[in-house]
Amino acid sequence: MNTLTVELGERSYPIEIGQGLLQKPELLTRHISGRQVMIVSNTTVAPLYLDRVQASLQGFNTATVILPDGEQYKTLDTLNSIFTALLEHRFNRGCTLVALGGGVVGDITGFAAACYQRGVAFLQVPTTLLAQVDSSVGGKTGVNHPLGKNMIGAFHQPGCVIIDTDSLDTLDDRQLAAGLAEVIKYGLIYDAGFFSWLEGNIAALKARDKQALAYAIERSCAIKAEIVAADERESGKRALLNLGHTFGHAIETGTGYGNWLHGEAVATGMLMAADLSARHGWLTREDVLRTEALLKQAALPTAPPATMSEQQFRELMAVDKKAVDDGLRLVLMKSIGDAFVTADYESSLLSETLTHAA
Amino acid sequence: MNTLTVELGERSYPIEIGQGLLQKPELLTRHISGRQVMIVSNTTVAPLYLDRVQASLQGFNTATVILPDGEQYKTLDTLNSIFTALLEHRFNRGCTLVALGGGVVGDITGFAAACYQRGVAFLQVPTTLLAQVDSSVGGKTGVNHPLGKNMIGAFHQPGCVIIDTDSLDTLDDRQLAAGLAEVIKYGLIYDAGFFSWLEGNIAALKARDKQALAYAIERSCAIKAEIVAADERESGKRALLNLGHTFGHAIETGTGYGNWLHGEAVATGMLMAADLSARHGWLTREDVLRTEALLKQAALPTAPPATMSEQQFRELMAVDKKAVDDGLRLVLMKSIGDAFVTADYESSLLSETLTHAA
Repeated sequence: MNTLTVELGERSYPIEIGQGLLQKPELLTRHISGRQVMIVSNTTVAPLYLDRVQASLQGFNTATVILPDGEQYKTLDTLNSIFTALLEHRFNRGCTLVALGGGVVGDITGFAAACYQRGVAFLQVPTTLLAQVDSSVGGKTGVNHPLGKNMIGAFHQPGCVIIDTDSLDTLDDRQLAAGLAEVIKYGLIYDAGFFSWLEGNIAALKARDKQALAYAIERSCAIKAEIVAADERESGKRALLNLGHTFGHAIETGTGYGNWLHGEAVATGMLMAADLSARHGWLTREDVLRTEALLKQAALPTAPPATMSEQQFRELMAVDKKAVDDGLRLVLMKSIGDAFVTADYESSLLSETLTHAA
Repeated sequence: MNTLTVELGERSYPIEIGQGLLQKPELLTRHISGRQVMIVSNTTVAPLYLDRVQASLQGFNTATVILPDGEQYKTLDTLNSIFTALLEHRFNRGCTLVALGGGVVGDITGFAAACYQRGVAFLQVPTTLLAQVDSSVGGKTGVNHPLGKNMIGAFHQPGCVIIDTDSLDTLDDRQLAAGLAEVIKYGLIYDAGFFSWLEGNIAALKARDKQALAYAIERSCAIKAEIVAADERESGKRALLNLGHTFGHAIETGTGYGNWLHGEAVATGMLMAADLSARHGWLTREDVLRTEALLKQAALPTAPPATMSEQQFRELMAVDKKAVDDGLRLVLMKSIGDAFVTADYESSLLSETLTHAA
C-alpha cells in the first residue's frame, strides 16, 4: 500500500492506494467520528463491492442509498433522494457519507455531504480508473444542470480516499479507456516524462498490467495532490487540470449526459485544445500528432460529434466556469508537459478548430 | 446611517442600517466586482423596491428572478429556477447575486450563490424585520426538505447587508410581529438589559416608532455580529441563537411550510423552551411569565398548534441540526439574558412541556 497526502492544513487527508484495500476496515473506520454512516453507491457497483464495505463498518449504524448508474442521473433530483434517505434515517450533523463508485457517485455524494445540515463528513472509495486518478481527489463536488455540466456544486474535501486497485478488475474496457484520458492529461499539462512513459506503456495499461496501472494511478494522484495543495479553490494553477474540459463539457451537454463518457469527451477536448494551440504556433504539429496517437492507442475518440455545430459549441462553452467578463479562458499548450490558461486566442482560429474537427 | 461590522477576517463585511439606503447606489455597487448582477426577489417585494435597486445598478449587466412569496417555496425546485436563470443569461463565476426580500429570499439566494459554479458573491438587502435582525446576517443559507426545515444548505457569507429601515413601512403587522420574535430572542439569550428595554418599548415598536425600531435593529445586529464572529460555523456559542428554533422548526414542518411564519413558530418555541427550563428549576416561573407577557404584547402566538401530538413533535425534533449521537441538544435558559445548550434534560419533563402546552 502506498499513501499520498493532499496537504491542505487542517483539511489534509490521505490517499491510500493498493490491492485489497476494501478488506482493510481500519482504513475507513479511522476517518469516521460519529456512529451513523450512509453508503452511497449505484446499481452497477453495489452488487460487486457493497458487502465488503458494509462488512468493514460493523458496529456502526449504517444505511445505504443505491443510485441509478450514469451521468444522466447526476441531477438535483438524485441529490434530493440522498437527503431524503438521510432524513428518513434521522441522520444527524455528526454522520459520515461514503461514496462507493465512479465519478458520478463521488461528485454527487460529496455535494450531498457539503449541503446536508450545512456540511457533514464524507469519504471517497472510487472504483473506476477515472474516479481514482481524478474526481475523487481535490474536493470538487456537484451535479449537472440541463444547461451546463457541473454548474451546481461546492468545494468540500473528503476525509480520505481509498483506492483499491483490485476494483479495476471488474471495470469494462470503455470505462478503463475513459480513465486513461485523465491519466494522459497529467502528462500533457505537467509532466513530459510521464507522457513518454505512457507512450511506452499504453499497451500494458490497456492489458490491465497491475504494476503499470498502479504506477499510473500513483503518479496521477501525486500530480493532482500537488496542484490542489497549491490552489484549492482554483484561483490559478488548478485551472490547468481542466485541459480539454471546456470543449469536453460542451460535448457532454450537447450530446445529452451519459452518451459520451466524461473521459471520452475530455480526450476529444484535449486534442481540440492541442489543435487550437498549434494553430497559434504555440505547440508543434508533431506534439499534436503524439497526443492524437496516444489517445487513439488508448481507444479514445478524438473527433467531436458530427451533430454539433460551431454555434452550439460556442453557446455551451460560454457558460464554462472559466468564463470571465472579458471572455472565455481556455487551457492551451506550449509543449507536451507545459499548459497555460489564456483568453488571448484568435476567435477565427477557434472557429477553425471547431469546424475543422467537426 | 450606522455601520456595524461582522468580523470574520478576510470575509468580514459591513451591515449598513438607516433610512433611505436604497437610494444610495454606492452602498451596493462598491461590493460588486464583476459586471453581471442577478437580483432575486419575490412577487410581494419586487413591485415595491425592485426599481430602486435596478436604478442603483445602472451600467451593470443586470437580470432578475422573481420567486413566489412564502416559506412553502423555499425548496430545491425554486433554487433550481435561479440556476436556470443564471445559465440562460450566461452568468459567469464573477457574477454577483442580490437578495432583495425577506428571510426566504435571503436564504435561498445565498444558497444559490454558494452553489452556482461552486460559489459566487452575493449581497443581502433584507426588507422584513425578521430578515434585517436575523437571517440576513451570519451566512446561514439553505432550503427546506419536506422532512425537515433548513436541512439543505451552506455557510456562505454575504459581501454586505444593506438595511433600509424605510422598507418596514410596507410590512404588514403580522410580519412585523414575526420579526419582533427574533428581536426578543436576543434579549432572552444574551442581554437582560435589552429585554427590559423591550418590555418598556414594545408599544412603540408595535406602533412602528422609527427611533425605537432603529435601536432594536442595531442592538439585534450587534449581538448577532458578535456571536457569529466568535463562532461562524456553530461549533459552540452560536447555537444559542437557536433558542426556540428546535420546537419552532417542528411546528413549521408539522403544520406545513407557510402556515405559521418562522417568527411565530420561534415565539411559541421560545416559550416552550422557557417552560421546560422552569420545569427543571433552571428558570423561575416569574421569568417564564415575563417572556410570555412580552411575546403576547408583540401579538405573537405562545401555544403550539392543537393538531400536533407529542409523538409528532418528538419525531420532527429528532432531525434537528443540534441532534448528536447521544441525543437531541436544546437551548434552554437559566435566567432572562442567560441561555445554554444541553442534552441533559429529563425526557419526562419534555413530555410535560409538549403535552401541557399543546
